[in-house]
This record gives sequence, structure tokens and C-alpha cells, in this order.
Amino acid sequence: MRIIVQKYGGTSVKGLERMRMVLARIQKAHALGYKLVVALSAMSGETNKLLAQAREFSADPDPAELDVLVTTGEQASVALFTMLAKDAGLRVRSLLGHQIPITTNSNFTRARIMEIDASHLRSLLEDYDVLVVAGFQGVDCHGRVTTLGRGGSDTTGVALAAALEADVCEIYTDVNGVFTTDPNLCSAARKLERISYDEMLEFSSQGAKVLQIRSVELAKKFNVPVRVRSTFTDDPGTLVTSEDTEMEDVLVSGIAYDKDQCRITVRNVKDTPGVAAAIFAPIAEAGILVDMIIQNTGRDGHTDMTFTISRVHLDKTLSILDHLRPEISADEIQHDIHVCKVSVIGVGMRSHSGVASTMFTLLKKENINILMIATSEIKITCLIEEKYLELAVRTLHDAFGLGEGPAVACV
Amino acid sequence: MRIIVQKYGGTSVKGLERMRMVLARIQKAHALGYKLVVALSAMSGETNKLLAQAREFSADPDPAELDVLVTTGEQASVALFTMLAKDAGLRVRSLLGHQIPITTNSNFTRARIMEIDASHLRSLLEDYDVLVVAGFQGVDCHGRVTTLGRGGSDTTGVALAAALEADVCEIYTDVNGVFTTDPNLCSAARKLERISYDEMLEFSSQGAKVLQIRSVELAKKFNVPVRVRSTFTDDPGTLVTSEDTEMEDVLVSGIAYDKDQCRITVRNVKDTPGVAAAIFAPIAEAGILVDMIIQNTGRDGHTDMTFTISRVHLDKTLSILDHLRPEISADEIQHDIHVCKVSVIGVGMRSHSGVASTMFTLLKKENINILMIATSEIKITCLIEEKYLELAVRTLHDAFGLGEGPAVACV
Repeated sequence: MRIIVQKYGGTSVKGLERMRMVLARIQKAHALGYKLVVALSAMSGETNKLLAQAREFSADPDPAELDVLVTTGEQASVALFTMLAKDAGLRVRSLLGHQIPITTNSNFTRARIMEIDASHLRSLLEDYDVLVVAGFQGVDCHGRVTTLGRGGSDTTGVALAAALEADVCEIYTDVNGVFTTDPNLCSAARKLERISYDEMLEFSSQGAKVLQIRSVELAKKFNVPVRVRSTFTDDPGTLVTSEDTEMEDVLVSGIAYDKDQCRITVRNVKDTPGVAAAIFAPIAEAGILVDMIIQNTGRDGHTDMTFTISRVHLDKTLSILDHLRPEISADEIQHDIHVCKVSVIGVGMRSHSGVASTMFTLLKKENINILMIATSEIKITCLIEEKYLELAVRTLHDAFGLGEGPAVACV
Repeated sequence: MRIIVQKYGGTSVKGLERMRMVLARIQKAHALGYKLVVALSAMSGETNKLLAQAREFSADPDPAELDVLVTTGEQASVALFTMLAKDAGLRVRSLLGHQIPITTNSNFTRARIMEIDASHLRSLLEDYDVLVVAGFQGVDCHGRVTTLGRGGSDTTGVALAAALEADVCEIYTDVNGVFTTDPNLCSAARKLERISYDEMLEFSSQGAKVLQIRSVELAKKFNVPVRVRSTFTDDPGTLVTSEDTEMEDVLVSGIAYDKDQCRITVRNVKDTPGVAAAIFAPIAEAGILVDMIIQNTGRDGHTDMTFTISRVHLDKTLSILDHLRPEISADEIQHDIHVCKVSVIGVGMRSHSGVASTMFTLLKKENINILMIATSEIKITCLIEEKYLELAVRTLHDAFGLGEGPAVACV
């Protein structure tokens, strides 16, 4: 039995006409002899509408009940699409999270998949051509409804593909694939034919919101080939896959950025063991994710601690720090919301040096001041002033040869 | 453990303000020491909206998928209400059909409840003050989602009360209870304090749409006291209960009517054994419910067959009869849609005669022609011309003493 898993996002299932396009794609794969397992998102806008409704009823809605509410979006999608597919003559049925089951832990609103009953799915595929699975949802071991977090339908798709050992997991969306950078920011942006899981992880975490980051982790863990492509064109899209030699020859795969950044500097804290923990433990307990962290070399027994967070958490973070001030004996707490991150990503960096210094030189040439630097094996990130974002992205994109023309930067 | 089951209809849960009123009622019962199991309908208008959406996707939607779709309405209701109740400090959670489970047969869109896991509910009631159950829905033995037909949340409520041996099942709606007749038609209509299951069954089947008929059958079978009352007033409502001596003293409890009637007459069919079956078997096979049936005494080996059906089935029925014409050698097939049913209902009729003749006399006095007559132990129904409906209802209501004044009709 040859199986393909396809996942269709919210814009692909919004309304009858678009669902007909989805149906045509499925029929095509079925005609080629494949069995299909199709994960659907809620129609675009639906989940936001439900969340807004919840907030009308409760300032801080119970997470378990929130999951009961928002899963209705995917439930409606699969029911409507299955009606359509059945009328077209396919042997098809819908499956909700609890019917497979997709078992998760009990972290409501951000659950993780623990197990998928693949043998149940395989036995259903004896009787059906297509199984239409509600994305984003699962059940915990007590049978309570859970969801996998924003973009969780991607993870549903990849997890189904892993469990069924499918040939491929196709993620259908409204863009043609993964680009070297944001085409809205840089018209020279080029679609990538292939990208490694690791590069894709860096792209996702940087806000190039093509795939939910957990779905990429899962794809990497189970070595599931993932093809990101558009529902609305015939472009083959981008294959997200394991690294190969060819990829390593490419030094830089893309330029990512993230505007949702906010820099906080805590001045002149005591440079003693435990001061970082004293600052960051209370912030983490408040559920605030800290992104970049820099601790300058101390002088006179004091140091500066600088870090970035998402802008929505600024007020809460400042209030936490204000309470901590006596304990950490900080002089001053400064913040700046007019900052952004720019990253150069590429698995080739693993075996080549010089990308970082090239990046710094290119930014200096444009008089762009670097506020913070962070590096990983395959990524170099600079925090810069937000007003230089576009310039920085275009400069780096051109210089590292990501557009159609020849590379400017020589490493 | 003293348990009350409450069911709230679509108008009672439509929006935040009304849900707050529901919450206040539940808190009141909880303060009296009761554990509560609360069945909720979808917000009013929601189910119709979902059905219209389904028809947009399929002319004849797959019933199993239709159930997956429409159950999202109740799912949203219970999630939103539970958020509200939890914020108010109650120990509360929602339960979907599959989580209890409420097991039904596999007749999608009109399933019947086979079993409710009461021990699961009882064990949950050790930990929770209030369980909020999605009405209308269940699962079959394969775990597929089912629904109980229009008004099915009433049946959910009564079935829960039966399974839990609750003190009472309170059905909250937007009217104060069961009336002697439709107050919109007859201003003298009076709310009944009590009504027997059998009378209520006659009311329901006659289109006095206060309770789903199956919920009344179930209440009768398990002797569940059902109180029909308004969410929006303090009126104690109407108790639907088993017959007692007091009730038998009341000759007539109410006047029901049904405008969704259509009369068909098949003229001069062969008066041979099997002719009724030849006519009605094909109609039944088409899923059309025949209501009243009259076969006149034949002459010359021929007879007339007259019956009534719902108006939506007229075209289909006429086309079936047209095909049957050669076989039953009918002269002519006539129909009339300007007819309606008026019924006098009362358990007292079991022990008293004369109600029928009084009804006929009263209608004759007003020059209302009786087109057909049907009787049961506790009901007499006349088919009359639709234009006389209001006059007939008012006349009978006054004459049988159902209003505030003294009875006019003496039996």
C-alpha cells in the first residue's frame, strides 16, 4: 500500500471553490494508485474567530475548554470536505482526533503527540481511498480534547506520515514553497528546490512562518520527506529533507528576519554566580520566552545583562524586573522596541568559516550598527535597528548570491 | 448524592448575557446542595446555519458527515458555557457525546440512544459540581459521531436523568411551560400546572413543539418527572408526569393543531384486499410519513382512499401515485393543501364519553365543515379548512373551559 499524506492549510480550505481545488489534487494522487490521508486545518479566520469568542466569555479561558471550542473549526472543515469528496465518488470518511486516536499529553492548547494508532489507520485504508483527518487536535489519555498549538495541523500531517511510513508529506499552503528570504521584502527572493531540516528549523524559529517548528523537528526525527507547495499552482514547491553533499556545497540558503523583537538591558547588576538565574528564572516562570541573551564581561564586580523578548511580553517583563531590582541591585533597566533580528542560514557553514565576518562587513558597509550577535552551527543572527531591516535583508540576499545574479560576497 | 438534570435550549444559550442567566440558575440549584448535569443545545440559529452550509457543499450530504458537522454547534456551546461557569468558581467541565459515552445506534441524523455510562458520570460527579454535556449528540459502537434528530437535546436531558435517577429533569426554554393551546392563536390560552406523559405525547406529535416526542416517550418509560419552564422568568412551569386521579377529573387538557397538512384523495380505486398496501407501501418506502387515513365504504367494487401528509412531501407523493395509477386503477387523484388539523386532548376521555360529539357540535355551530376525523384513546382530531383554524381553536378552547372563564361545553 503506497500512502501519501497531504495537509491543507486554512486558506486552502476556505470555501467551496477552494475545497474543489483540494479535491482535484487528491483525485490526481488517487488516480496514480496512492491511498491518501489528508489533514485539514480550519478555514482561515475561523480559529481567530473562536478565540475572540472565548475571550468574550472569559478574560482567561480555561485551556481545556478552549481546546473543546477551537477544535470545532477543523471538525467543520473535515465534515464539509468529506461530503464533497464522497459526492465525487471517492471512498472517503472523516476522522477526528479521538477517533484515530491521536494521543497527546495533557498540555491543553500546546499538547505534544505521544502516539498515533497507525494500525487502525492502515486497516481503515483497506476500506477507504481517502481518510480526512482533523488537523491540530488530539485526545489525552483521559479522552479529553487537546490541541497542538498554532500551526499544529502541520505537525498532525508530519506525525501521520511518520506513523504510516508514507512516501511523502505534502504541506499545501498559499505560497509556492520556502524562499531564500521574504519576497515581500526583497523582490530578488528565489524559491528553494530543497532545504535541510536544520535550515528549515532555523527559518521557522525566525518567523518565516511556513511550517510549525515542531513539525520540522518531527520530520527530522523520523526522516519524513516534506514537500511544501501551493494548492493554487503547479509549482513542485520545496522539498524539506535530510542533508546531502549537494546542500553542503551551498554556503548560505537564505536570509531570515524577525520583527517581533524587543531589547531589554539591565545595567550594572552584581556580577556574581546566580545573577543570570535570578533574572531569567522569574521571567521563564511567567511563561515568557527569552530569545537572545548577552552578558558583557564585567568590570568592578558589575555587569550588563541584555536580552530580547517578543514585544507582547514587554510590560510584563518590565514589571517582573522592577520587582527584582533590589535583589539584583541593578542601576537601570532600559528597553528598545525599534529593533529586529536578521539571520543568515546555511548548513554549509558547518564546514566553511568566514560567513560571520562577511555578514558583519556587509552590514558595516551600509552603516548598519549591530546591537547584538548570536550564532549557532548553521546560523548567524544580528540584532539591528528596525529601520535598517529591508536594507540589511536585500544587501545580505544579494551579496550571498541568493538571487538570480552572481554572488557579491566572497567568503 | 442528589442530582438534577437541566437542559437549556438554543434561545437560552444564545450569547453571553443569556448564558449568565443560565449560570445563575445553576448556581442556585448548586447552593441548595444538588449536583448538576446540564445538557446544552447549540445557540439558536447555529444548527440551521450549519445545515445550510452543508447544502452548499452537497445537494444530499452524507448523513455521517452531516452529524460530524452539526455537532460542532453544541460543542461550542458547552465549551463557552463551561469557561464562564469555571470563572464563577464552580468545579465544572464539559463532556462531549464520545466522552461519556452516550452510545447510540448508527442511524446518522436520527440515532436512538442505546446506553449511557452512568457510573462514569457518577464518578465524575465526585470531583465536579456541574457536568456540562453537549446535547443532541452521541457515538455509535464504532466511535462515529451521531445525532438524535431535531430537538434531540431534550432527549439527551431526559436520558441523562433516567440513567442517573435524577430527582427531576428541568427543560429550560423560552416559554413558561405547556399551554392549553397556542397563545399566539388564542389569547385565553392558559399554562398547565401538570400534564400527563400521554397528553404531552399527543401535544408534541401535533406540532405543539415544546418537547421532542422521543424525550417524552423516554420520560414515560423511565418515569422521569420533567419540568418545562422558562430560563427568563421565575414561573415554575409545567410538570410532565405520570397520570394521577386528579388529572383524570379534567376532561380536556388542551387544544392542539397542525398546519403542515395536505390531503390527498385517490378516487374509485378497486375495493380489493391489498389495495391499501399497494398505495401506502411505496409511499412509506419513500420515507414519507402518512398521518390520517380514511377508506370510505366501497360501492360497485370501488372505493375512495383519503389521507394526509406533510406539505413538503406533496410533489413526491403525487408522482408516486401517478406511477401506481394503472395498478390500482384509480379514476382521479385530488389534493388540497388548504387544510389543517385541530385536536382535543385529555386523559379524562379514557373514562368519559361525549367529548367527540361535543366537538362536532361546536364546529357545526360555527359552520366549520369536518373533512376527516381520527380518534385515539385520549385525543379527537378533525381535519378542517385552514381558514377556520383560528376560529376552531378559540371556540373549542373556550367551550371546553380551558381559559380562565367557566366552560361553555357541557359533556
